Amino acid sequence: MAARLQRMSRLMLKTLREDPADAETLSHRLLVRAGYVRRTAAGIWTWLPLGKQVLENVTRIVREEMDAAGAQEVLLPALLPREPYETTGRWTEYGELLFRLTDRKGADYLLGPTHEEIFTQVVKDQCTSYKDLPVMLYQIQTKYRDEARPRSGVLRGREFLMKDSYSFDTSDEELAESYRLHREAYVRIFTRLGLDHRIVSAVSGAMGGSASEEFLAPAAAGEDTFADCPSCGYAANTEAVTFPLKPAGNPLGHPPLQELDTPGTPTIETLAEHLGVPASATLKNLLVKVDGEITAVGVPGDREVDLGKLAEHLAPATVELVTAEDFTGRPALVRGYVGPQGLAGIALRYLADPRVAPGTSWITGANKPDTHARNVVCGRDFEVDEYLDVATVEPGDPCPSCGAGLRLDRAIEIGHIFQLGRKYADAFGLDVLGRDGKPVRVTMGSYGIGVSRAVAALAEQTADDKGLCWPDEVAPADVHLVAAGRGAQTELALELADRLAAAGVRVLVDDRTGVSPGVKFTDAELIGVPRILVVGRGAAQGLVELRDRRTGEREEVPVEAAVERLAG
Amino acid sequence: MAARLQRMSRLMLKTLREDPADAETLSHRLLVRAGYVRRTAAGIWTWLPLGKQVLENVTRIVREEMDAAGAQEVLLPALLPREPYETTGRWTEYGELLFRLTDRKGADYLLGPTHEEIFTQVVKDQCTSYKDLPVMLYQIQTKYRDEARPRSGVLRGREFLMKDSYSFDTSDEELAESYRLHREAYVRIFTRLGLDHRIVSAVSGAMGGSASEEFLAPAAAGEDTFADCPSCGYAANTEAVTFPLKPAGNPLGHPPLQELDTPGTPTIETLAEHLGVPASATLKNLLVKVDGEITAVGVPGDREVDLGKLAEHLAPATVELVTAEDFTGRPALVRGYVGPQGLAGIALRYLADPRVAPGTSWITGANKPDTHARNVVCGRDFEVDEYLDVATVEPGDPCPSCGAGLRLDRAIEIGHIFQLGRKYADAFGLDVLGRDGKPVRVTMGSYGIGVSRAVAALAEQTADDKGLCWPDEVAPADVHLVAAGRGAQTELALELADRLAAAGVRVLVDDRTGVSPGVKFTDAELIGVPRILVVGRGAAQGLVELRDRRTGEREEVPVEAAVERLAG
Repeated sequence: MAARLQRMSRLMLKTLREDPADAETLSHRLLVRAGYVRRTAAGIWTWLPLGKQVLENVTRIVREEMDAAGAQEVLLPALLPREPYETTGRWTEYGELLFRLTDRKGADYLLGPTHEEIFTQVVKDQCTSYKDLPVMLYQIQTKYRDEARPRSGVLRGREFLMKDSYSFDTSDEELAESYRLHREAYVRIFTRLGLDHRIVSAVSGAMGGSASEEFLAPAAAGEDTFADCPSCGYAANTEAVTFPLKPAGNPLGHPPLQELDTPGTPTIETLAEHLGVPASATLKNLLVKVDGEITAVGVPGDREVDLGKLAEHLAPATVELVTAEDFTGRPALVRGYVGPQGLAGIALRYLADPRVAPGTSWITGANKPDTHARNVVCGRDFEVDEYLDVATVEPGDPCPSCGAGLRLDRAIEIGHIFQLGRKYADAFGLDVLGRDGKPVRVTMGSYGIGVSRAVAALAEQTADDKGLCWPDEVAPADVHLVAAGRGAQTELALELADRLAAAGVRVLVDDRTGVSPGVKFTDAELIGVPRILVVGRGAAQGLVELRDRRTGEREEVPVEAAVERLAG
Repeated sequence: MAARLQRMSRLMLKTLREDPADAETLSHRLLVRAGYVRRTAAGIWTWLPLGKQVLENVTRIVREEMDAAGAQEVLLPALLPREPYETTGRWTEYGELLFRLTDRKGADYLLGPTHEEIFTQVVKDQCTSYKDLPVMLYQIQTKYRDEARPRSGVLRGREFLMKDSYSFDTSDEELAESYRLHREAYVRIFTRLGLDHRIVSAVSGAMGGSASEEFLAPAAAGEDTFADCPSCGYAANTEAVTFPLKPAGNPLGHPPLQELDTPGTPTIETLAEHLGVPASATLKNLLVKVDGEITAVGVPGDREVDLGKLAEHLAPATVELVTAEDFTGRPALVRGYVGPQGLAGIALRYLADPRVAPGTSWITGANKPDTHARNVVCGRDFEVDEYLDVATVEPGDPCPSCGAGLRLDRAIEIGHIFQLGRKYADAFGLDVLGRDGKPVRVTMGSYGIGVSRAVAALAEQTADDKGLCWPDEVAPADVHLVAAGRGAQTELALELADRLAAAGVRVLVDDRTGVSPGVKFTDAELIGVPRILVVGRGAAQGLVELRDRRTGEREEVPVEAAVERLAG
C-alpha cells in the first residue's frame, strides 16, 4: 500500500536555529525548534503537522496493544458534571488542580483530570451480571489539570492526551489478572515505542508491592526520582521507598538523658559542628499543622522531611508549616530547640521516620533556649505515635529488600497501573449479580499512559546535540530525502520519493528551492527522521548517499541499491 | 490483513427494548437502544464500544479525504486563552454559547467553539512569505458550545467532535481554489459515508452565492429547513433565501389612504376576517428593540418575522421583543394597530421584507385603537429604511432564480464551507511577504464537518423500524454472525468468524449463551450491521442463512459459498 509522501515545499514547517527563551528541557527546546509543537498558552500546546503525526503514531501503537490485550475502546466526554465527583469527594480533594466551570444554567462542571467516576457509572449502567465481567475499557482522550507550574513543554501540560483504562472484576484474583494483562500490554507498548523504561513500585510495601507500579523513562528532565538496587533488582519511586522498623535493643540500656548548654545552635549544622558529631546522630523535629493541629515529625538530622510524601500520607488532611505566630502562647514549644521528650506533656502528636526506632538514642532539642539533650532514647524518654516514611531518600541508603546501597535516578513517569479495589464501586454501589444469585461488589483497576508525555519522553531519551532522533515506528517518516541541488537532483529526489512511497515507505522529501544544502542537512538532523537519503552531486553517476541519523554513518550507494534497501 | 473480530459474549453491550424517555429523534432513540452512546449530562455523551467504532470509521474517512485534498492535519487545544477571542470580539459576541472558565491564577479561558483565532495566530507564526502559501490546515477535535436546549442526542451536543479546517491564501482567486478543493473533498466524504446530501447556498445572494454553502442531509429530525426549486435546481437554506425587490409601479397611482373602523381586530386573523380580505393583503408590523432602540419590521400579513434571521442580519446588535412597558409614555405607538405611515413622525426605523416594495398598497394599522387604514402605499404614505429578508419562507414561494414554486424540506447541517476573507487576518495583522517584496494581507476560508453529528445524521437517514442500518464503510462490522443454537452451531459460527476475520472481513459474532435466537435476531437488526449470517439448524447440512439488513432478503447458501461471497 502506498505510504505518505510529504514535500517540504508544501509542508507548514518553520524550524528555528535558536532555543525558545522559556524552554527548560531538551525535549521542549527541540520539539519547538523542529516545528513539532507551538505554545498556545501556559501548559497548553498546539501540535503542528510533524508533531501531530508523531502523536498519532504513538496513539496507534497504544490502541493496537490495548485492543490486543482485550480492552474495549470507548470515548468519554472531557466536560463532566460535578455530582459524581462530589460523590467520591474528589470535587473538593483535587483542590486547585481541577478546572471548574459553570454552564448557562448555573450547573457546576469540571474538565476531567481522570475518569474513574464516570467509568464506574457507565459499567453500573451496562453490566448487571457476573457474566458481563471481566471487562476492560479504555479511551485515548484529552485530560485537564491546572498545574501550579506548567513547564517542560508537552512533558507536563495543563491539557494533555492520555490513554486511561479501567478494569472491572468480581474477585481479587480476576483483578490481579486484569492488572497483569495491562502490565504486559504496557511493556509491549513502551518497547514498540522505543522507550527505555523501568517498572517500579509506586506504593509503600505495607499496601502490597504489586498493587501499584509506575513505568518510568529514565531521563535527566524527569520530575520523578526512583531508587534501584544494583544488587537485588529492587526498584521503587523514592516516594514509595519504605524502610523497615528495626527496634535497636532495650531502651533502658542507655545512659541517662543529659542536657547540654549549646548556645547559638538552632540548626542541625551548627549543633553537629558545635558537638563534633555527625548530623545523623541528631534528631530533627519539624513542626507542622495537620488540619490545623500542631504535630511534630522526627527524622534523623541528616535528612529532610519530604513534605509531598507527608501530605500524601496524611491526605485528605491538609498539611501546613507552622509560622512564628503558632509559637505565641506556647512556652513549651521553643523554636529551634524542640525535643520529642517534651511533647507528651503538651499533648502533641509525634510522627517519626522508622530509623527513630525503639531503643535508638539521639541528640535533640531540650525544649529550652540554647539547650540540647543527649541520650534521648526512643521508648524511654519519648514515644512515637506513628511511624511514617516521609524522610528524603539518599543515594547509598540501604535497599529495603537486601540492604545493599541504593542508586537514585531521575525519570519521567510514562505509565501507572493501579489496583484500585472497591473504593469507587463502594461510592457508586457498583454490584453485579454473582454466580450464586447474590450481589457481588465489583473491584476495579485503573491504568494510565501519558500519550503526549510519551512523545516528550521519547524526545528526551533519543535526541542528541544535533536534534531529534525518533525510533522507527514513531518517526513522522521512514526516510528524509534531501535534494541537495536544483534541477536534475530535485527531479531525481522527487522521482525516488514517488517510488519509495509507492513501495510503502513514508517519505519526507526536502524539495525546497532557495534553501542551501547546508540548511537542508541541518534541518534533517533537527527533524530526526531515522534515515536520510541525499541526492547530491553523485546523482549524475547514479549514486546517492544514505545516512543513519542516529549513528551518523554515511554510505554512498547506487540509486537502485538505496531503493531496495529502504523499501526492503 | 486480519480484521477485527468481536465476540458479543465479551463485548460491553446492553441493548434496550424500550425507547429512552427523553429521546425526541429516531437517531437518539436508536443509538441509545442499540448501545452506541450513553448520556453523561445534558448534551454530553459517552461513546460506547460500537459507537466509538462508528465514530472512528467516520473520522478515518474524513481524514483520508482531507489528506487527499492536500490539507495538513494539526491538533489545537480545546482550552483557549481569552485574549485572541477578545481581539476579534467573539469573547463577548458568543454570549451564553461560550463556556468560560478561570484558571488558578485568575486568568480567563474558554472552551473552543471554533478555532479561527488560534489558526490565524499559528499561521502568522509559521508562514512569513507567499512561498509558504497556500496552506490548508485541519484538525479533528472536540468542540464546546453551551447550547440553550441541547437535545436530539449526539445530533446537537454541547461537547462534540468536529473536523474544522482553514485555508490561507494571498489572493481571492487562490481562496476560490482552496474553497473548491474543500467543496470537492466534502462531496467525496459524504458520498463515502453514504449520506444523502444537498449543497445549498447559506448566505444571501447579495454577498455572492458561492461565498458560503452548507451541506445538508435531508432528515425529518433536522433543525434546518432548506428550499429547493424543482424547476431550476436552486437550493438554499431558508435562512439564505432572498427575494428580489420588484417596485410595483407608481406609488402615486393609488386611491388615497382611508381609515377604517375595525373594533376588536388586534391580530391579522381577526382583521382579515373582519374585512374579508386575504392575510397577504395586510401589512404586519413587529416592534423589536435593536440594541435597546425600538424598531419596526414589516412583512406581509401571511408571514412571520423569523427572529433568528433578523438577529443574524442585525448582528452584532442585540435584538429583543418589546414588552408592554415599552409602550408606556409613547402614545403614538398603539399596540396591535401600528402602521408604518406613523413611524417617520416619531423617528422610528422601519425595516421591511422586499415584498413591501415601492408602489405596493396595504391594509395596516392606523396608529389609533380599533382603527386600521387601507390604501397605505409604500413610497407615498411611508418609506422603508432598509429591506431585509427576514420573513418566513413558505412552500410554493416563487424561486428567486426562476419563479417556480419552491419546495421546503427539513435537513441536518453536516458541513459548512465559507470564504471568510480578511476579517481574521485584519484582526491579527496576518501578512506575508508578497512576490514584489511588499506585505500582502492573507485571505482565509473556514470549513467544518460535524463528525459526531454525521453519525446521528446517518442513523436518521438509514434506520428503519427495526433499528439502525449502517452503510458499509461506517458500520462497526461487515457481517453480524448469529449462532442461533448452542454446541455445534456456536462452534461453527466461531470457526466461520475466524476464517472471515482472517480474510479481512470485520466480524461481530453473537456467541452469547442463554440468549434466545429471537433475541439475537432482534439485536442484530437493532445494531444494524449490513449483512447478517445465521448459523442455525441448516448447519448440520452445511447450510447457513445470509440476510441483507437493509432489504430483509434472506438466502440459504452452503457455508463455503457464504464465506466466498463475504470475503470476495
